[in-house]
Amino acid sequence: MSLIIGIDPGSRMTGYGIIDTQGDKLAFLDAGTIRTDSSDMPTRIAQIFSGVTRIVAHYQKYSDKPMHAAIEQVFMASNPDSALKLGQARGAAIAALTALDLTVSEYTARQIKQAVCGYGAAGKEQVSDMVCRLLSLTVVPQADAADGLACAICHAHSSHSMSKLLGNSAFANRSTSKKKGRWRLSEEDALMMLKR
Amino acid sequence: MSLIIGIDPGSRMTGYGIIDTQGDKLAFLDAGTIRTDSSDMPTRIAQIFSGVTRIVAHYQKYSDKPMHAAIEQVFMASNPDSALKLGQARGAAIAALTALDLTVSEYTARQIKQAVCGYGAAGKEQVSDMVCRLLSLTVVPQADAADGLACAICHAHSSHSMSKLLGNSAFANRSTSKKKGRWRLSEEDALMMLKR
Repeated sequence: MSLIIGIDPGSRMTGYGIIDTQGDKLAFLDAGTIRTDSSDMPTRIAQIFSGVTRIVAHYQKYSDKPMHAAIEQVFMASNPDSALKLGQARGAAIAALTALDLTVSEYTARQIKQAVCGYGAAGKEQVSDMVCRLLSLTVVPQADAADGLACAICHAHSSHSMSKLLGNSAFANRSTSKKKGRWRLSEEDALMMLKR
Repeated sequence: MSLIIGIDPGSRMTGYGIIDTQGDKLAFLDAGTIRTDSSDMPTRIAQIFSGVTRIVAHYQKYSDKPMHAAIEQVFMASNPDSALKLGQARGAAIAALTALDLTVSEYTARQIKQAVCGYGAAGKEQVSDMVCRLLSLTVVPQADAADGLACAICHAHSSHSMSKLLGNSAFANRSTSKKKGRWRLSEEDALMMLKR
């Protein structure tokens, strides 16, 4: 059992999504965006850092489950200017996560799409649709928040984190015999999580 | 009177320099580098964040002077890959500074060279030489540490920060009548600062 926060950083808008994992079940907990409104980059970095800190600290305070973080790995941005901006947002978000002792795993866009849609070249809408289906969401989240959730799902889904999660889970024996790649959230769990 | 930390961020090596300002005097306090040794970017970001935090927290604890931060503003890096790495290091450093309530001022490379050498197109060695002369250093600091010190000197030197500094300084009247642009550190002050 653990919480996973997925982050989609951006200098103007940083999306995040938090899911609760219980063996082979995934439950939606939270999703949203941290918007930065300053023309000044240090202020934007401070807003991203404090935003991520506030969200993680909240769940660390109210949940006794360990929390892990996942973020998209960017190999090459389109141009140096946008790469610099994205890098700074990413640095601020990762600094906040590591300062609160979260381990941060990185996944390529292809890995995330593969984990969520079963197809590494899936489009943005397909990812968003599958996030809604996998987490039984009736409302489509904002695009960056959906990307954060997709990243969190990928982390839960990856065989690496799977083995880690199952090693510490009461569901270990039950789950390892199940087919991977098909997360199902029971309605009761979803309601329970959303009510918290 | 205030302390100024100048930062020259990099994903492998982040230089810093700290100076103490007293009216129109500048005193060297500290300089060094934060080296990151991991192949994993989140770990490097965490090391930069905790390194900057440790240094700033130390001076905040042992000095009652307010501390300001200065960092080089990068408009365009050479390529997207290096821009992304630089951006992440920069984001981590600025996040640490702002988390400790420091105001962060940005200066272009040209402004820094102009402030330190009186010539915006000065070479790296000229900047390093002038940093040593202005702060009466007998040992040449490592290149990134020297760049951090240069950035701190630029902040002290800029007319904007100058007016701020002088507004709160006992040296206000004496200093405003002096010619700007020629910082001189008395030997007694240098020894006093280095002995602390």
